[in-house]
Amino acid sequence: MTPFISTHRVEFCDTDMAGIAHFTAFFRYMEAAEHAFLRSRGLSVVQEEGGPAGAHISWPRVAASCDYKSPARFGDLLEIEVRLEKLGEKSAVWQHLIRCGGRELAVGQMTSVCCRIVPGQRPASIVIPPDLRAKLEA
Amino acid sequence: MTPFISTHRVEFCDTDMAGIAHFTAFFRYMEAAEHAFLRSRGLSVVQEEGGPAGAHISWPRVAASCDYKSPARFGDLLEIEVRLEKLGEKSAVWQHLIRCGGRELAVGQMTSVCCRIVPGQRPASIVIPPDLRAKLEA
Amino acid sequence: MTPFISTHRVEFCDTDMAGIAHFTAFFRYMEAAEHAFLRSRGLSVVQEEGGPAGAHISWPRVAASCDYKSPARFGDLLEIEVRLEKLGEKSAVWQHLIRCGGRELAVGQMTSVCCRIVPGQRPASIVIPPDLRAKLEA
Amino acid sequence: MTPFISTHRVEFCDTDMAGIAHFTAFFRYMEAAEHAFLRSRGLSVVQEEGGPAGAHISWPRVAASCDYKSPARFGDLLEIEVRLEKLGEKSAVWQHLIRCGGRELAVGQMTSVCCRIVPGQRPASIVIPPDLRAKLEA
Repeated sequence: MTPFISTHRVEFCDTDMAGIAHFTAFFRYMEAAEHAFLRSRGLSVVQEEGGPAGAHISWPRVAASCDYKSPARFGDLLEIEVRLEKLGEKSAVWQHLIRCGGRELAVGQMTSVCCRIVPGQRPASIVIPPDLRAKLEA
Repeated sequence: MTPFISTHRVEFCDTDMAGIAHFTAFFRYMEAAEHAFLRSRGLSVVQEEGGPAGAHISWPRVAASCDYKSPARFGDLLEIEVRLEKLGEKSAVWQHLIRCGGRELAVGQMTSVCCRIVPGQRPASIVIPPDLRAKLEA
Repeated sequence: MTPFISTHRVEFCDTDMAGIAHFTAFFRYMEAAEHAFLRSRGLSVVQEEGGPAGAHISWPRVAASCDYKSPARFGDLLEIEVRLEKLGEKSAVWQHLIRCGGRELAVGQMTSVCCRIVPGQRPASIVIPPDLRAKLEA
Repeated sequence: MTPFISTHRVEFCDTDMAGIAHFTAFFRYMEAAEHAFLRSRGLSVVQEEGGPAGAHISWPRVAASCDYKSPARFGDLLEIEVRLEKLGEKSAVWQHLIRCGGRELAVGQMTSVCCRIVPGQRPASIVIPPDLRAKLEA
């Protein structure tokens, strides 16, 4: 299967006084790449559904990790390869390979749980709806 | 009246590759100071109210500005004096004086509009409720 | 002259609990757009130059402001038109028009001062170097 | 040994449209807590030293991870217990326990490498200097 790759510019505000992209910026890039992957499948991380106003299906994180191998610098155009490593009954494990000009910068992994979000209530995990699963597995 | 002052540390992730706090960090400090002011009056920028689930009163910005006089650095402990400059029928104008060790770093101003937020709908401006106004004017 | 326009996606982490892009996100979009403008002219907001290691020319902000007219939401693709309003001896005034699908969301303005940054020293304003000015005025 | 605990407020700009603190905010809280730990030992994550202007010792991350158990909300006052899990020849492993009102919200771990930062050069790992090590082990 063709890998899904999205590109992300290291912006000035992503850098810190050590002159490199702050480690938290990589998590934001990974999330943006994952959401681009979802858009490419006709999905959104925030899926409207019927029911009470504002209720929607979303994917809160239960785990996030990143190993950093080489720093990213202002202006770098990063390539992020997004892989859906595992699709469970209620959860998804994503892997992210971050490169720049052929150099590997970081590898990240994030686990999300499919939840119904009702405003004012605590997120409640649900079985991934079949139509959503079908598009993720396409 | 005793001025309201809250303190904010310049964190590492607030700095940029020029070695100083990024200009957007000042807006975050100002907002945090404003919300501390509200807490000191028994208020919150997110005030629950009856009606549809998740509906609340909040204060979206219609204007924000800052003049920067001197840079802030990692580890600086900033003092932010928050003044409620003007309280209109539906809006509030806040002024923020940002100092560090007696030195003036920046002056900011933000205008917010009192809105009813209903999930999934566009914020709608409302007349500031009397109890809320009373606490702001205390 | 053809206006310079760059596009920016409203990411999930840019939203807040009111369901709209946080007001500080607009400042980050504007800065990213301004830096894209500079790249289009063969420039960078961080211009290396000779002298001590790490010394460079950059443009700290002395003023930033934004008027908000309509909220931006997750997934919106914003168009930012960047205009160099005024080029002084040592400073630049930028204006930013932020739109989404033909709707005007915000107008921002930022003033920057051309500075020599030497690590560990305070930024010092300088007259904009002629080659840099020529590219900005092109 | 008395555990080191620092407190961090969940600010409005830390929340996202799901109404909870964005997962990346936890990494910023953990870093701020770690830096507070260092200050309590008379240290800084950015330690000046002799040599070229701007050169300093700092601790870039090589790994960061977090497991999320319960969401944090706007206004929550988080308690972060910081533990120096392991001090290697050139690296440090930190563990962070994040609680709110007795409830455990998240557990994080971060590994940093002691590096000499020279502006314009790539960070170079070094053996942790003895005085620095002594204060960390105190």
